[in-house]
Amino acid sequence: MPQGETVEFWFDFSSPYAYFAHFHIEELAARHKRAVLWRPFLLGAAFQATGMQSLSKTPIRGDYALLDWERMARRESIPFQLPETHPAISVNPARAFYWLEESHPDAAIPFAKAVFRRCFADGRDISKAEAVIELGASCGVASETLQAALADQAVKDRFRARTDEAIARGVFGSPFFFIDGEPFWGSDRLAMMDDWMTRGGW
Amino acid sequence: MPQGETVEFWFDFSSPYAYFAHFHIEELAARHKRAVLWRPFLLGAAFQATGMQSLSKTPIRGDYALLDWERMARRESIPFQLPETHPAISVNPARAFYWLEESHPDAAIPFAKAVFRRCFADGRDISKAEAVIELGASCGVASETLQAALADQAVKDRFRARTDEAIARGVFGSPFFFIDGEPFWGSDRLAMMDDWMTRGGW
Repeated sequence: MPQGETVEFWFDFSSPYAYFAHFHIEELAARHKRAVLWRPFLLGAAFQATGMQSLSKTPIRGDYALLDWERMARRESIPFQLPETHPAISVNPARAFYWLEESHPDAAIPFAKAVFRRCFADGRDISKAEAVIELGASCGVASETLQAALADQAVKDRFRARTDEAIARGVFGSPFFFIDGEPFWGSDRLAMMDDWMTRGGW
Repeated sequence: MPQGETVEFWFDFSSPYAYFAHFHIEELAARHKRAVLWRPFLLGAAFQATGMQSLSKTPIRGDYALLDWERMARRESIPFQLPETHPAISVNPARAFYWLEESHPDAAIPFAKAVFRRCFADGRDISKAEAVIELGASCGVASETLQAALADQAVKDRFRARTDEAIARGVFGSPFFFIDGEPFWGSDRLAMMDDWMTRGGW
Protein backbone atom coordinates (compact mmCIF):
# COMPACT_ATOMS: atom_id res chain seq x y z
CA MET A 1 0.00 0.00 0.00
CA PRO A 2 1.61 3.32 -0.99
CA GLN A 3 1.86 5.55 2.08
CA GLY A 4 4.87 7.67 1.16
CA GLU A 5 4.38 10.20 -1.57
CA THR A 6 0.62 10.26 -1.64
CA VAL A 7 -2.27 12.58 -1.11
CA GLU A 8 -4.69 10.74 1.15
CA PHE A 9 -8.26 11.44 0.06
CA TRP A 10 -10.73 10.46 2.80
CA PHE A 11 -14.36 10.77 1.85
CA ASP A 12 -17.85 9.43 2.17
CA PHE A 13 -19.39 8.40 -1.15
CA SER A 14 -22.53 10.31 -0.23
CA SER A 15 -20.72 13.63 0.34
CA PRO A 16 -21.35 16.24 -2.37
CA TYR A 17 -18.20 18.16 -1.42
CA ALA A 18 -16.19 14.95 -1.91
CA TYR A 19 -17.82 14.55 -5.33
CA PHE A 20 -16.64 18.03 -6.30
CA ALA A 21 -13.14 17.37 -4.95
CA HIS A 22 -12.74 14.06 -6.78
CA PHE A 23 -12.70 15.89 -10.11
CA HIS A 24 -9.55 17.75 -9.10
CA ILE A 25 -7.58 15.67 -6.65
CA GLU A 26 -5.78 13.43 -9.14
CA GLU A 27 -4.57 16.32 -11.25
CA LEU A 28 -3.44 18.16 -8.13
CA ALA A 29 -1.55 15.15 -6.77
CA ALA A 30 0.01 14.34 -10.15
CA ARG A 31 1.30 17.88 -10.46
CA HIS A 32 3.33 17.16 -7.33
CA LYS A 33 4.29 13.67 -8.49
CA ARG A 34 2.09 12.01 -5.92
CA ALA A 35 -0.54 9.31 -6.13
CA VAL A 36 -3.99 9.68 -4.64
CA LEU A 37 -4.79 7.19 -1.91
CA TRP A 38 -8.59 6.84 -2.08
CA ARG A 39 -9.99 6.23 1.38
CA PRO A 40 -13.76 5.98 1.71
CA PHE A 41 -15.05 5.98 5.29
CA LEU A 42 -18.38 6.24 7.04
CA LEU A 43 -18.94 9.91 7.84
CA GLY A 44 -21.88 9.12 10.11
CA ALA A 45 -19.54 7.23 12.43
CA ALA A 46 -17.21 10.24 12.59
CA PHE A 47 -20.16 12.53 13.32
CA GLN A 48 -20.81 10.48 16.43
CA ALA A 49 -17.33 11.38 17.68
CA THR A 50 -17.89 15.12 17.26
CA GLY A 51 -21.64 15.36 17.94
CA MET A 52 -22.11 16.79 14.43
CA GLN A 53 -24.76 15.72 11.98
CA SER A 54 -25.35 15.65 8.25
CA LEU A 55 -25.38 19.10 6.63
CA SER A 56 -28.67 18.28 4.97
CA LYS A 57 -30.21 17.65 8.37
CA THR A 58 -28.93 20.90 9.91
CA PRO A 59 -31.47 23.74 9.77
CA ILE A 60 -30.47 26.80 7.71
CA ARG A 61 -27.00 25.40 7.02
CA GLY A 62 -28.59 22.63 5.00
CA ASP A 63 -30.34 25.16 2.76
CA TYR A 64 -27.08 27.00 2.22
CA ALA A 65 -25.27 23.76 1.41
CA LEU A 66 -27.75 22.93 -1.34
CA LEU A 67 -27.36 26.41 -2.82
CA ASP A 68 -23.58 26.08 -2.55
CA TRP A 69 -23.46 22.66 -4.26
CA GLU A 70 -25.58 23.86 -7.15
CA ARG A 71 -23.47 27.00 -7.43
CA MET A 72 -20.22 24.98 -7.44
CA ALA A 73 -21.62 22.72 -10.14
CA ARG A 74 -22.63 25.66 -12.32
CA ARG A 75 -19.26 27.33 -11.78
CA GLU A 76 -17.32 24.29 -12.96
CA SER A 77 -19.90 23.03 -15.47
CA ILE A 78 -20.15 19.78 -13.55
CA PRO A 79 -23.45 17.88 -13.56
CA PHE A 80 -25.09 17.80 -10.14
CA GLN A 81 -28.28 16.19 -9.04
CA LEU A 82 -28.94 15.34 -5.41
CA PRO A 83 -30.46 11.85 -5.09
CA GLU A 84 -33.88 11.72 -3.46
CA THR A 85 -32.34 9.36 -0.92
CA HIS A 86 -29.56 11.81 0.06
CA PRO A 87 -27.63 11.26 2.26
CA ALA A 88 -27.39 7.64 1.17
CA ILE A 89 -25.75 5.08 3.44
CA SER A 90 -22.47 4.41 1.68
CA VAL A 91 -21.47 1.17 3.40
CA ASN A 92 -21.95 -1.09 0.36
CA PRO A 93 -19.96 0.93 -2.19
CA ALA A 94 -17.21 1.53 0.37
CA ARG A 95 -16.92 -2.19 1.20
CA ALA A 96 -16.80 -2.94 -2.51
CA PHE A 97 -14.09 -0.34 -3.03
CA TYR A 98 -11.71 -1.85 -0.45
CA TRP A 99 -12.36 -5.34 -1.75
CA LEU A 100 -11.57 -4.18 -5.29
CA GLU A 101 -8.46 -2.36 -4.11
CA GLU A 102 -7.08 -5.71 -2.99
CA SER A 103 -8.56 -8.14 -5.49
CA HIS A 104 -8.99 -6.03 -8.66
CA PRO A 105 -6.71 -3.03 -8.07
CA ASP A 106 -7.12 -1.66 -11.59
CA ALA A 107 -10.87 -1.48 -11.14
CA ALA A 108 -10.98 0.21 -7.73
CA ILE A 109 -10.57 3.86 -8.73
CA PRO A 110 -12.75 3.62 -11.86
CA PHE A 111 -15.37 2.03 -9.61
CA ALA A 112 -15.09 4.89 -7.08
CA LYS A 113 -15.57 7.43 -9.85
CA ALA A 114 -18.55 5.48 -11.19
CA VAL A 115 -20.12 5.57 -7.70
CA PHE A 116 -19.74 9.35 -7.50
CA ARG A 117 -21.14 9.75 -11.02
CA ARG A 118 -24.18 7.60 -10.34
CA CYS A 119 -24.86 9.36 -7.05
CA PHE A 120 -24.41 13.00 -7.99
CA ALA A 121 -24.36 13.28 -11.78
CA ASP A 122 -27.29 10.89 -12.26
CA GLY A 123 -28.88 11.46 -8.84
CA ARG A 124 -29.42 7.72 -8.35
CA ASP A 125 -29.17 5.45 -5.34
CA ILE A 126 -25.76 4.00 -4.43
CA SER A 127 -26.65 2.34 -1.17
CA LYS A 128 -28.19 -0.93 -2.29
CA ALA A 129 -26.14 -4.01 -3.13
CA GLU A 130 -27.80 -4.19 -6.58
CA ALA A 131 -26.58 -0.70 -7.43
CA VAL A 132 -23.06 -1.55 -6.32
CA ILE A 133 -23.04 -4.80 -8.30
CA GLU A 134 -24.23 -2.94 -11.39
CA LEU A 135 -21.45 -0.38 -10.94
CA GLY A 136 -18.92 -3.17 -10.49
CA ALA A 137 -20.10 -4.82 -13.69
CA SER A 138 -19.58 -1.53 -15.55
CA CYS A 139 -15.94 -1.75 -14.41
CA GLY A 140 -15.58 -5.35 -15.57
CA VAL A 141 -16.12 -7.08 -12.22
CA ALA A 142 -18.18 -10.27 -12.27
CA SER A 143 -21.48 -9.75 -10.47
CA GLU A 144 -21.46 -13.03 -8.51
CA THR A 145 -17.96 -12.37 -7.20
CA LEU A 146 -18.83 -8.89 -6.01
CA GLN A 147 -22.11 -10.09 -4.54
CA ALA A 148 -20.22 -12.70 -2.52
CA ALA A 149 -17.64 -10.12 -1.42
CA LEU A 150 -20.34 -7.79 -0.06
CA ALA A 151 -21.52 -10.59 2.21
CA ASP A 152 -18.01 -11.53 3.35
CA GLN A 153 -17.29 -10.73 6.98
CA ALA A 154 -13.62 -10.01 6.23
CA VAL A 155 -14.70 -7.37 3.69
CA LYS A 156 -17.05 -5.80 6.22
CA ASP A 157 -14.29 -5.81 8.84
CA ARG A 158 -11.84 -4.12 6.51
CA PHE A 159 -14.16 -1.18 5.91
CA ARG A 160 -14.93 -0.88 9.60
CA ALA A 161 -11.20 -0.79 10.32
CA ARG A 162 -10.72 2.01 7.79
CA THR A 163 -13.49 4.06 9.39
CA ASP A 164 -11.96 3.42 12.81
CA GLU A 165 -8.62 4.56 11.42
CA ALA A 166 -10.21 7.75 10.08
CA ILE A 167 -11.74 8.61 13.43
CA ALA A 168 -8.53 7.77 15.29
CA ARG A 169 -6.66 10.17 13.00
CA GLY A 170 -9.09 13.01 13.62
CA VAL A 171 -11.07 12.87 10.37
CA PHE A 172 -14.40 14.58 11.11
CA GLY A 173 -15.68 15.70 7.71
CA SER A 174 -15.67 14.83 4.03
CA PRO A 175 -13.56 15.32 2.04
CA PHE A 176 -10.56 15.24 4.35
CA PHE A 177 -6.97 15.02 3.15
CA PHE A 178 -3.56 14.19 4.58
CA ILE A 179 -0.31 15.23 2.98
CA ASP A 180 2.61 13.67 4.81
CA GLY A 181 0.42 13.58 7.90
CA GLU A 182 -0.79 17.20 7.63
CA PRO A 183 -4.60 17.34 7.74
CA PHE A 184 -6.73 19.45 5.43
CA TRP A 185 -10.51 19.53 5.63
CA GLY A 186 -12.83 20.50 2.82
CA SER A 187 -13.00 20.74 -0.94
CA ASP A 188 -12.18 24.44 -0.68
CA ARG A 189 -8.71 23.67 0.65
CA LEU A 190 -7.29 22.33 -2.60
CA ALA A 191 -5.50 25.61 -3.39
CA MET A 192 -3.94 25.62 0.08
CA MET A 193 -2.83 22.00 -0.39
CA ASP A 194 -1.30 22.94 -3.72
CA ASP A 195 0.64 25.71 -2.01
CA TRP A 196 1.61 23.35 0.83
CA MET A 197 3.10 20.83 -1.57
CA THR A 198 4.82 23.50 -3.66
CA ARG A 199 6.50 25.04 -0.63
CA GLY A 200 6.93 21.80 1.31
CA GLY A 201 4.84 23.23 4.13
CA TRP A 202 5.33 26.56 5.86
CA MET B 1 -27.00 53.06 4.77
CA PRO B 2 -25.35 51.81 1.56
CA GLN B 3 -27.02 48.56 0.46
CA GLY B 4 -26.38 48.71 -3.26
CA GLU B 5 -22.85 48.11 -4.44
CA THR B 6 -21.45 46.59 -1.28
CA VAL B 7 -19.93 43.43 0.01
CA GLU B 8 -21.73 42.67 3.27
CA PHE B 9 -19.27 41.27 5.79
CA TRP B 10 -21.11 39.59 8.67
CA PHE B 11 -18.89 38.40 11.48
CA ASP B 12 -18.47 37.83 15.19
CA PHE B 13 -15.54 39.74 16.67
CA SER B 14 -14.44 36.55 18.42
CA SER B 15 -14.23 34.50 15.22
CA PRO B 16 -10.67 33.71 14.09
CA TYR B 17 -11.80 33.03 10.52
CA ALA B 18 -13.39 36.50 10.45
CA TYR B 19 -10.09 37.93 11.69
CA PHE B 20 -8.29 36.31 8.76
CA ALA B 21 -10.93 37.49 6.29
CA HIS B 22 -10.85 41.10 7.50
CA PHE B 23 -7.31 41.49 6.17
CA HIS B 24 -8.52 40.83 2.62
CA ILE B 25 -12.13 41.90 2.31
CA GLU B 26 -11.56 45.61 1.69
CA GLU B 27 -9.04 45.04 -1.07
CA LEU B 28 -11.34 42.46 -2.65
CA ALA B 29 -14.37 44.76 -2.55
CA ALA B 30 -12.40 47.77 -3.79
CA ARG B 31 -11.16 45.79 -6.78
CA HIS B 32 -14.81 45.49 -7.78
CA LYS B 33 -15.59 49.11 -6.89
CA ARG B 34 -17.63 48.14 -3.89
CA ALA B 35 -17.62 49.22 -0.27
CA VAL B 36 -17.51 46.77 2.61
CA LEU B 37 -20.54 46.89 4.87
CA TRP B 38 -19.20 45.72 8.25
CA ARG B 39 -21.87 43.80 10.11
CA PRO B 40 -20.91 42.30 13.47
CA PHE B 41 -23.49 39.92 14.93
CA LEU B 42 -23.69 37.46 17.80
CA LEU B 43 -22.68 34.08 16.45
CA GLY B 44 -23.89 32.30 19.57
CA ALA B 45 -27.44 33.43 18.83
CA ALA B 46 -27.18 32.03 15.29
CA PHE B 47 -25.84 28.75 16.67
CA GLN B 48 -29.06 28.39 18.62
CA ALA B 49 -30.99 28.47 15.35
CA THR B 50 -28.94 25.65 13.81
CA GLY B 51 -28.10 23.61 16.90
CA MET B 52 -24.40 24.17 16.21
CA GLN B 53 -21.80 25.19 18.75
CA SER B 54 -18.49 26.98 18.88
CA LEU B 55 -15.71 25.23 16.95
CA SER B 56 -13.48 25.39 19.99
CA LYS B 57 -16.06 23.45 21.98
CA THR B 58 -16.52 20.73 19.34
CA PRO B 59 -14.36 17.65 19.99
CA ILE B 60 -11.73 16.83 17.33
CA ARG B 61 -12.95 19.64 15.04
CA GLY B 62 -11.79 22.15 17.62
CA ASP B 63 -8.26 20.71 17.56
CA TYR B 64 -8.22 20.92 13.78
CA ALA B 65 -9.47 24.50 13.86
CA LEU B 66 -6.60 25.56 16.11
CA LEU B 67 -4.08 23.88 13.81
CA ASP B 68 -5.79 25.51 10.81
CA TRP B 69 -5.76 29.01 12.32
CA GLU B 70 -2.08 28.78 13.19
CA ARG B 71 -1.33 27.42 9.73
CA MET B 72 -3.27 30.24 8.03
CA ALA B 73 -1.41 32.80 10.12
CA ARG B 74 1.99 31.33 9.19
CA ARG B 75 1.01 31.15 5.53
CA GLU B 76 0.10 34.82 5.37
CA SER B 77 2.61 36.04 7.95
CA ILE B 78 -0.22 37.39 10.06
CA PRO B 79 0.18 37.51 13.84
CA PHE B 80 -2.16 35.11 15.61
CA GLN B 81 -2.62 34.48 19.28
CA LEU B 82 -5.79 32.93 20.66
CA PRO B 83 -6.92 34.78 23.81
CA GLU B 84 -7.15 32.66 26.94
CA THR B 85 -10.79 33.70 27.13
CA HIS B 86 -11.61 32.47 23.61
CA PRO B 87 -14.37 32.50 22.49
CA ALA B 88 -15.00 35.89 24.08
CA ILE B 89 -18.53 37.28 24.26
CA SER B 90 -18.47 40.01 21.65
CA VAL B 91 -21.58 41.95 22.67
CA ASN B 92 -19.75 45.04 23.94
CA PRO B 93 -17.48 45.67 20.94
CA ALA B 94 -20.37 44.98 18.56
CA ARG B 95 -22.67 47.44 20.36
CA ALA B 96 -19.88 50.00 20.26
CA PHE B 97 -19.37 49.42 16.56
CA TYR B 98 -22.99 50.14 15.61
CA TRP B 99 -23.07 53.19 17.85
CA LEU B 100 -19.88 54.48 16.21
CA GLU B 101 -21.24 53.75 12.76
CA GLU B 102 -24.02 56.23 13.45
CA SER B 103 -22.37 58.77 15.71
CA HIS B 104 -18.70 58.68 14.64
CA PRO B 105 -18.78 57.04 11.20
CA ASP B 106 -15.12 57.69 10.45
CA ALA B 107 -14.09 55.82 13.59
CA ALA B 108 -16.26 52.71 13.14
CA ILE B 109 -14.09 50.66 10.79
CA PRO B 110 -10.77 51.62 12.43
CA PHE B 111 -12.40 50.57 15.72
CA ALA B 112 -13.47 47.20 14.25
CA LYS B 113 -9.93 46.57 13.03
CA ALA B 114 -8.56 47.52 16.43
CA VAL B 115 -10.90 45.01 18.08
CA PHE B 116 -9.67 42.22 15.81
CA ARG B 117 -6.05 43.20 16.41
CA ARG B 118 -6.43 43.25 20.17
CA CYS B 119 -8.25 39.92 20.17
CA PHE B 120 -6.15 37.85 17.79
CA ALA B 121 -2.85 39.65 17.21
CA ASP B 122 -2.38 40.52 20.88
CA GLY B 123 -4.49 37.67 22.29
CA ARG B 124 -6.22 40.01 24.75
CA ASP B 125 -9.76 40.22 26.03
CA ILE B 126 -12.30 42.22 24.01
CA SER B 127 -15.43 41.38 25.97
CA LYS B 128 -15.25 43.82 28.87
CA ALA B 129 -16.49 47.40 28.66
CA GLU B 130 -13.08 48.69 29.80
CA ALA B 131 -11.38 47.00 26.86
CA VAL B 132 -13.89 48.48 24.44
CA ILE B 133 -13.54 51.95 25.92
CA GLU B 134 -9.77 51.71 25.63
CA LEU B 135 -10.09 50.66 21.99
CA GLY B 136 -12.49 53.52 21.33
CA ALA B 137 -10.04 55.98 22.85
CA SER B 138 -7.33 54.70 20.51
CA CYS B 139 -9.66 55.72 17.67
CA GLY B 140 -10.27 59.19 19.12
CA VAL B 141 -13.58 58.49 20.84
CA ALA B 142 -14.11 60.10 24.25
CA SER B 143 -14.27 57.45 26.95
CA GLU B 144 -17.24 58.88 28.84
CA THR B 145 -19.32 59.12 25.69
CA LEU B 146 -18.61 55.51 24.72
CA GLN B 147 -19.18 54.33 28.28
CA ALA B 148 -22.61 55.98 28.26
CA ALA B 149 -23.40 54.50 24.84
CA LEU B 150 -22.66 50.96 26.04
CA ALA B 151 -25.29 51.39 28.76
CA ASP B 152 -27.87 52.91 26.40
CA GLN B 153 -30.87 50.68 25.74
CA ALA B 154 -31.24 52.00 22.19
CA VAL B 155 -27.66 50.93 21.45
CA LYS B 156 -28.34 47.48 22.88
CA ASP B 157 -31.51 47.20 20.83
CA ARG B 158 -29.74 48.13 17.63
CA PHE B 159 -27.21 45.32 17.99
CA ARG B 160 -29.94 42.86 18.87
CA ALA B 161 -31.84 43.90 15.73
CA ARG B 162 -28.72 43.31 13.60
CA THR B 163 -28.28 39.84 15.04
CA ASP B 164 -31.97 39.12 14.43
CA GLU B 165 -31.51 40.34 10.87
CA ALA B 166 -28.52 38.02 10.41
CA ILE B 167 -30.47 35.00 11.60
CA ALA B 168 -33.51 35.93 9.51
CA ARG B 169 -31.28 36.09 6.44
CA GLY B 170 -29.79 32.65 7.08
CA VAL B 171 -26.41 33.67 8.49
CA PHE B 172 -25.18 30.69 10.51
CA GLY B 173 -21.40 31.10 10.64
CA SER B 174 -18.64 33.68 10.70
CA PRO B 175 -17.52 35.21 8.44
CA PHE B 176 -20.55 35.26 6.19
CA PHE B 177 -20.89 37.49 3.15
CA PHE B 178 -23.63 38.72 0.85
CA ILE B 179 -23.00 40.10 -2.61
CA ASP B 180 -26.22 41.48 -4.08
CA GLY B 181 -28.09 39.04 -1.86
CA GLU B 182 -25.98 36.00 -2.77
CA PRO B 183 -24.67 34.30 0.41
CA PHE B 184 -21.11 33.06 0.88
CA TRP B 185 -19.92 31.39 4.05
CA GLY B 186 -16.34 31.19 5.21
CA SER B 187 -13.01 32.92 4.83
CA ASP B 188 -12.02 30.33 2.24
CA ARG B 189 -14.69 31.61 -0.16
CA LEU B 190 -12.97 34.88 -1.00
CA ALA B 191 -11.63 33.54 -4.32
CA MET B 192 -15.10 32.35 -5.29
CA MET B 193 -16.55 35.74 -4.38
CA ASP B 194 -13.90 37.41 -6.52
CA ASP B 195 -14.91 35.20 -9.42
CA TRP B 196 -18.61 35.88 -8.73
CA MET B 197 -18.12 39.64 -8.90
CA THR B 198 -15.90 39.40 -11.98
CA ARG B 199 -18.41 37.33 -13.90
CA GLY B 200 -21.52 38.93 -12.37
CA GLY B 201 -22.60 35.56 -11.04
CA TRP B 202 -22.89 32.35 -13.02
